[in-house]
Amino acid sequence: MSARLLNLSRPSIAHSSLKSISKRLPRFSASRPVSSCSPSFPCVEAHAARESRLKENSRASSSSTTPGRTESGPEPAYARPNPTSYNVYHHTHPLNLTYSHEPLPSFDIAYETWGSISPARDNVILLHTGLSASSHAASTAANPADGWWQKFIGPGKALDTNQFFIICTNVLGGCYGTTGPSSIDPTTGRPYATTFPILSIFDMVRAQYRLLDHLKIDKLYASVGCSMGAMQSLATAWLHPDRVGKVVSISGTARSSPSSVAMRYAQRSVLMADPNWNNGFYYDALPPHTGMKLARQIATITYRSGPEWDQRFGRQFRPRPESDDPSTIRVPALCPDFLIETYLDHQGEQFCLKYDANSLIYISKAMDLFDMTYSALQELKLASTTPSASSSPDPSSSSHPSLHKTSHSKSHPPPLKPPPHLSDLAKGLQPLAQIPTLVLGVQSDILFTVEQQREVADALRMAGNDNVSYYELGGVWGHDTFLIDVLNVGGAIRGFLS
Amino acid sequence: MSARLLNLSRPSIAHSSLKSISKRLPRFSASRPVSSCSPSFPCVEAHAARESRLKENSRASSSSTTPGRTESGPEPAYARPNPTSYNVYHHTHPLNLTYSHEPLPSFDIAYETWGSISPARDNVILLHTGLSASSHAASTAANPADGWWQKFIGPGKALDTNQFFIICTNVLGGCYGTTGPSSIDPTTGRPYATTFPILSIFDMVRAQYRLLDHLKIDKLYASVGCSMGAMQSLATAWLHPDRVGKVVSISGTARSSPSSVAMRYAQRSVLMADPNWNNGFYYDALPPHTGMKLARQIATITYRSGPEWDQRFGRQFRPRPESDDPSTIRVPALCPDFLIETYLDHQGEQFCLKYDANSLIYISKAMDLFDMTYSALQELKLASTTPSASSSPDPSSSSHPSLHKTSHSKSHPPPLKPPPHLSDLAKGLQPLAQIPTLVLGVQSDILFTVEQQREVADALRMAGNDNVSYYELGGVWGHDTFLIDVLNVGGAIRGFLS
Repeated sequence: MSARLLNLSRPSIAHSSLKSISKRLPRFSASRPVSSCSPSFPCVEAHAARESRLKENSRASSSSTTPGRTESGPEPAYARPNPTSYNVYHHTHPLNLTYSHEPLPSFDIAYETWGSISPARDNVILLHTGLSASSHAASTAANPADGWWQKFIGPGKALDTNQFFIICTNVLGGCYGTTGPSSIDPTTGRPYATTFPILSIFDMVRAQYRLLDHLKIDKLYASVGCSMGAMQSLATAWLHPDRVGKVVSISGTARSSPSSVAMRYAQRSVLMADPNWNNGFYYDALPPHTGMKLARQIATITYRSGPEWDQRFGRQFRPRPESDDPSTIRVPALCPDFLIETYLDHQGEQFCLKYDANSLIYISKAMDLFDMTYSALQELKLASTTPSASSSPDPSSSSHPSLHKTSHSKSHPPPLKPPPHLSDLAKGLQPLAQIPTLVLGVQSDILFTVEQQREVADALRMAGNDNVSYYELGGVWGHDTFLIDVLNVGGAIRGFLS
Repeated sequence: MSARLLNLSRPSIAHSSLKSISKRLPRFSASRPVSSCSPSFPCVEAHAARESRLKENSRASSSSTTPGRTESGPEPAYARPNPTSYNVYHHTHPLNLTYSHEPLPSFDIAYETWGSISPARDNVILLHTGLSASSHAASTAANPADGWWQKFIGPGKALDTNQFFIICTNVLGGCYGTTGPSSIDPTTGRPYATTFPILSIFDMVRAQYRLLDHLKIDKLYASVGCSMGAMQSLATAWLHPDRVGKVVSISGTARSSPSSVAMRYAQRSVLMADPNWNNGFYYDALPPHTGMKLARQIATITYRSGPEWDQRFGRQFRPRPESDDPSTIRVPALCPDFLIETYLDHQGEQFCLKYDANSLIYISKAMDLFDMTYSALQELKLASTTPSASSSPDPSSSSHPSLHKTSHSKSHPPPLKPPPHLSDLAKGLQPLAQIPTLVLGVQSDILFTVEQQREVADALRMAGNDNVSYYELGGVWGHDTFLIDVLNVGGAIRGFLS
């Protein structure tokens, strides 16, 4: 007995308290089975239980017209499109794509609007979404539920509906009303699945331009986006500089970094390893809900920051089961145990049936591929091989004449030794040289790092843009700051747009 | 045709080059099937192919004595222990454990040594490993293969074998000769699997002390460790301050942060979701090789840094297949495509059959649970409820008298407003107050951040330790710096130990 205590405590303490050994013997909670029992793993059982529910629902609705699609239960929300809650523009002409021989024969684009269009049709803001968002950025008469940017859209808000007509679309490749891998391929009558062509951010924006054409909107007052939406926002101006008045790029990039590719690759990998994914052909079977949950857990790690978790969760455990004697030693579990784990588990659980797995794969790949350096654009035949004559000096020339233009905000100095790709990026961004641009980033963002924000601002300035507003925010919210920090993010946008 | 070109290029460029449309029409590589074909996913097929190989090997060896364990082929290396290449100490007495009612009835501990023990047995360095390393830190006569710290151990090296006798063990819970979940439970005659008890870092160190007792080593010249080894290094000194002369803690922590828990949780989650994991009972079947590969990919992201990948991979793609026409547009794949992706894929592939999945789960959980704050130690009945009388001032007192002792290296100032847990940690670390300690961290480490290194150094100084050497390294190698930077890491260790 004393040997046991000696092992469990530091000897100096143990020696000093041998008199009260029996009192100090550690006791253990009985909630975990002892080694002779069969261990249980509720976190693993949750996947199996969800699979059973999905199977049961699928059977119950086997008489319905769409196999595997049920009326209720834990069935993917994207499989129940509700075109009464948003508008759909059906484009009947082929859309050419960056990476594909074949154009997309036709496509739908889901969109919602807020505010009123002016008689001159010159007060339009096109709002671009992040990876998994729908067109429902804020509540509407048709859908009063809160949207993903609810606090930023409305009378007197960052996007002021008293002044602007705001359009938000579900992105091409998505699953909330716009054509994507889960849509029916008109040539086969079955879902595209992974026969859907690889997309680029430029393809998404081209589809949005077809909607603007349809709505007879020649020129946007502004193109606004956060995260992947910031990529689209830059691409919108790049494709048609004459059709965009101002650009807002928040927590985005003009050139995806290998570390962000790595983090999205990890998500695609766990998803594609789920047997239910079945090479993308799961639309008449069970969706890869476990892979989606795991992918979302990884994504969530990249959306916030360590300092936020220090403050919010620290090293706290989930509450002990009531059956536990609080005076005993808590026996840890291999399933979620710390609050940070139950938080990730919950985030994954919430998401896993809300979004289409193939949409996640295609859109995250499009983000990886995004690169506005001149050489990358040229390789895609997007930029001409001989640069067009321009009034701006060529930022790729060895003397970097326009580097001196990088006056910068007070918050960060111009790069002393710009990396080689910066002048390449400046050359790629030259079409934006005359468009006032707001670039805003967050220092705690690990997905779209603040270095990437500086890169966009520096490259635009090197390209000759004298109207780059640049802000860096502090705080602990990481990449998600654009969803949370109404005061600072909203304020910067209001100031820039007014 | 012109409409297509208009879509693919910026209109201004397209308009200017209408004459040469046919030449400028983008062409595409034919290596990716067009949409009418069935898409192929080599990265997914690789899992299935490995599974087939494993099954075949398993069948071929079904006549062998150990079911599922074969003589050759892609069979887990840990399932083929080779006790001729390392020493094994078999401890026949029960080992009490932090979180378990039942002691471990007996255990093996695999170890290797370098250099010669002095007649006074006072030149011993105990080297602790990271999560997945074996006792093979450097080549030996019995095993001439390079070890995991090959460049740091030898005559005149960081751990100088002319001067020191170095011992490295495989950690308790591991799978390279020391008892762990893949070992046979003597009470059942079958592998423990997940009936193995939850471990703490303290348990691992207690097992190592039993080996030191066996080797008649009363006091270590130094306890040295990196990553998880740094946790053990601190715990070694904490359990028996009188038996440790110096402590080296490199890229470790005294209190795991929620962000590191999150990253390890993501790894455990993907592993436990692999159907082959089977609640841990896979030893007579196929191991969860896909889950292991995915887990290792996630781990690899945390071992290096974004800046390293910027330099090493940038946005480079893997080489195009030779069948591709280099003048065509490269059609991206959903499987690994960028070099950063093929790198992660390769790292996962290399690891997935080299290490036991349950060992990964148990040891990574032990890392999560590691917390040397006084309140956490007290909760585990490791620290007494009434602190022992000490010559050092109580660092938890409100006036923080010893905070003024935090003289710090020149590289970082003392914390102006120490977080609440710092004095708790200082109180927990008080047993180390008289032990010279080297704390070294790396600014690009995202797993054991530099803030965590400062925390250890600050807490030790607050505890009254006047002999804390503290270094922060720059560079881009992140957490893996301790494996790579022989000059700086090795130099600091040599200087501190001499």
